[in-house]
Amino acid sequence: MTEQLDSDGRLRHLLTLDGLPKEILCRLMDRAGQIRDTAMGRTQRRSDLNGGTVCTLFFEPSTRTRSSFHIAAQRLGADVLNFDASTSSTRKGETARDTLRNLEAMGVRGFIVRHAEDGAVAQLAGEAGEGTSVINAGDGRSGHPTQGLLDVLTIRQAKGPDFSKLKILITGDVKHSRVARSDLHALRTMGAGDIRVCGPASLLPEDDTLAGCQVGEDFDAMLEGADVVMMLRLQRERMEEGLVSSLEDYHRHYGLTAARLRRAAADAVVMHPGPINRGVEITDEVADGPQSLVLRQVSNGVAIRMAVLEMLLG
Amino acid sequence: MTEQLDSDGRLRHLLTLDGLPKEILCRLMDRAGQIRDTAMGRTQRRSDLNGGTVCTLFFEPSTRTRSSFHIAAQRLGADVLNFDASTSSTRKGETARDTLRNLEAMGVRGFIVRHAEDGAVAQLAGEAGEGTSVINAGDGRSGHPTQGLLDVLTIRQAKGPDFSKLKILITGDVKHSRVARSDLHALRTMGAGDIRVCGPASLLPEDDTLAGCQVGEDFDAMLEGADVVMMLRLQRERMEEGLVSSLEDYHRHYGLTAARLRRAAADAVVMHPGPINRGVEITDEVADGPQSLVLRQVSNGVAIRMAVLEMLLG
Amino acid sequence: MTEQLDSDGRLRHLLTLDGLPKEILCRLMDRAGQIRDTAMGRTQRRSDLNGGTVCTLFFEPSTRTRSSFHIAAQRLGADVLNFDASTSSTRKGETARDTLRNLEAMGVRGFIVRHAEDGAVAQLAGEAGEGTSVINAGDGRSGHPTQGLLDVLTIRQAKGPDFSKLKILITGDVKHSRVARSDLHALRTMGAGDIRVCGPASLLPEDDTLAGCQVGEDFDAMLEGADVVMMLRLQRERMEEGLVSSLEDYHRHYGLTAARLRRAAADAVVMHPGPINRGVEITDEVADGPQSLVLRQVSNGVAIRMAVLEMLLG
Repeated sequence: MTEQLDSDGRLRHLLTLDGLPKEILCRLMDRAGQIRDTAMGRTQRRSDLNGGTVCTLFFEPSTRTRSSFHIAAQRLGADVLNFDASTSSTRKGETARDTLRNLEAMGVRGFIVRHAEDGAVAQLAGEAGEGTSVINAGDGRSGHPTQGLLDVLTIRQAKGPDFSKLKILITGDVKHSRVARSDLHALRTMGAGDIRVCGPASLLPEDDTLAGCQVGEDFDAMLEGADVVMMLRLQRERMEEGLVSSLEDYHRHYGLTAARLRRAAADAVVMHPGPINRGVEITDEVADGPQSLVLRQVSNGVAIRMAVLEMLLG
Repeated sequence: MTEQLDSDGRLRHLLTLDGLPKEILCRLMDRAGQIRDTAMGRTQRRSDLNGGTVCTLFFEPSTRTRSSFHIAAQRLGADVLNFDASTSSTRKGETARDTLRNLEAMGVRGFIVRHAEDGAVAQLAGEAGEGTSVINAGDGRSGHPTQGLLDVLTIRQAKGPDFSKLKILITGDVKHSRVARSDLHALRTMGAGDIRVCGPASLLPEDDTLAGCQVGEDFDAMLEGADVVMMLRLQRERMEEGLVSSLEDYHRHYGLTAARLRRAAADAVVMHPGPINRGVEITDEVADGPQSLVLRQVSNGVAIRMAVLEMLLG
Repeated sequence: MTEQLDSDGRLRHLLTLDGLPKEILCRLMDRAGQIRDTAMGRTQRRSDLNGGTVCTLFFEPSTRTRSSFHIAAQRLGADVLNFDASTSSTRKGETARDTLRNLEAMGVRGFIVRHAEDGAVAQLAGEAGEGTSVINAGDGRSGHPTQGLLDVLTIRQAKGPDFSKLKILITGDVKHSRVARSDLHALRTMGAGDIRVCGPASLLPEDDTLAGCQVGEDFDAMLEGADVVMMLRLQRERMEEGLVSSLEDYHRHYGLTAARLRRAAADAVVMHPGPINRGVEITDEVADGPQSLVLRQVSNGVAIRMAVLEMLLG
């Protein structure tokens, strides 16, 4: 296992939120908040990373996450290189390790890596040289740490810094979700006292991912009094794999409608990592309604990624 | 219909040249001319948009138009994000509207949008938030306003500001051409008195697109005394659709040769939006000859797009 | 044949190392060395090309070479446009010449061109206007001049400026290698006295490419006392074409193992243009061993490309 902290406890890579000290997590959130407040994300251009090259190295395609990191790095004044590892020399038989080392030799200081296999990003980080940082932009089902960070930031902005009193519900395909795993790590670190996880048994993990959570299949029951309702995306593959019978059926049991949302706390907030299957996980009315923080999550995503890049490469 | 002017008559989006006030059209041309004259397009870097992110959001591929906008935005100091909507999360079922809103939440201020459907860009503009501008980079057959602008700019540079005396001929597949529609709007606004449209009946529109134009199928006759000869690209699909029998046949009737060009005014200029099918719409001799403004159109394209971006986002 | 030097002997394009004066070659190496020494490649951002647009125009895909040029141009402050000519308007029937002229009209001053056909890049350079430079990033089997430059730079750093005493061995598919051709040109210009070329007869060229070289099929014999061992990549197509029976067989005869490397001089260095087929051309032990300069070649690649861009466009 590659260590993401150096011997002085400083962040060297960002690979997982599992075990990431609360102090670092809060520092990143504070900085992302500042970035938002000063509108720096919008109109100013920082030069902290000026001259450094940041590379998005995606072994699995993801335009959305890549764009968010791209914008974050550009705003910090970095040169950004998009390296699509699914259509490149990796196809010529080059190993991921050789691709990383070559780009490093070209002067890339920061790698933003997505990979379809669990642990592949951490393994690559183990190959990185002195002075090079690797950020996990999603690996297999393991984690997607910047998503976890932006989610707790979004909750903190809405509900304040004390997570211990919050009733937080995560609903959907937790089993295959890297987002859910990172959210759970971050929520525990923040001291969340009441974490509920809901979904059909076929989509709930059987390992210790849900340790300490209230788990159930009855969405209506789990919604009662929830302060935060985090919905997960349902990949269409689940139908083909026979884990879900149909989108209609899924929506009937686990779709968040305005009627259902009334079971939650009156000031409950709704979150989703996107892209939303409208009418499946969430109805239009809820997705675009006043309780939805979906777009706030997206803009927090750029801010938190700027904060991460700054901490690692600044 | 989304309004492209705000309540003070200022340009908020650029969606169509239909109804765009002459004053704005001229202001854009003047500024593009300045940009060219100061060689700014080439050697200086402006920072008017510094820090703002501009996104090319193409639901239909077009390397050429995208490159022109990309260079224009870069020269103004903007960060540019290329978002290829045909190979991205839109394939995961995300709506165009959600894609736009997400990118907006990431801090994109200017969207350059191409779409295969008529009206799709204007519809998207209706979803844009305060402070965000949308530029139509071509939608269906409806329009391609920056092409219309660069075309009238090119004519004004060659023939002066008085369009009322000019004999302007548009030849080819007007029916399917967004370029022709935008050109016609701009030419009318500029007060062009004698607009001629020529092509086989199968490629001429039957609606009121050509209102006020002289329309005919005889290219030789229409060329007589023309000051400006605008040729349109013939898409190869027209053969498959049976609208044109063969390229040879098309060229025989509607190809611009040096011999034919002699029917036009001695100082006539020749234009084409590109890419040219050499030997079909235009012979090499004419395309590369002294009367051709084809490359001037291309360089005016960057200048006019800089002027548009500056007016919308500056 | 397009001239790459102007009438004052200054570099106008970089098309081939064949006949490039030693003085220019050394000037480029000296500058690349300075760039490395001042760590400019890593942390500073120059602005010599600020405002100029550089375009990678690849008619044949190559992520690795494109990335190296991209980073080099970005570090010099240039705007970079990636124009993938295999998925663009060239597919709409546009000629390479029209693509170049259009991009030139958009303000591109430097073209980095890769093409599958011998001589295609030089031919394009002949179409370039005043003030526009073309860099050959690999054409057919003809040449890949920046690779040749980075290779002699890497040798000079390791072995000093006097090439006359060096025993330099090039091994592998010389017949199809643009890298080998550029290396041979550069090595001759640098005055290399003992150039050896080794490979199966099916992969050795029959023309005068190897004039003045010691040529042989026995890798072990050729390795004796070598100071520099340059290995070439084996394309898998060679198997399909029947030029090589199997990877195993190739490795048995021409694979560089630690045992074989002992035949070379004690301080011999090992080079490979990448991407390496590990276990075919070179074993892991050698590729990652202390004598390998493979990653040094990659980082020299960025430095030499910065030097070339600066000389052509600065």
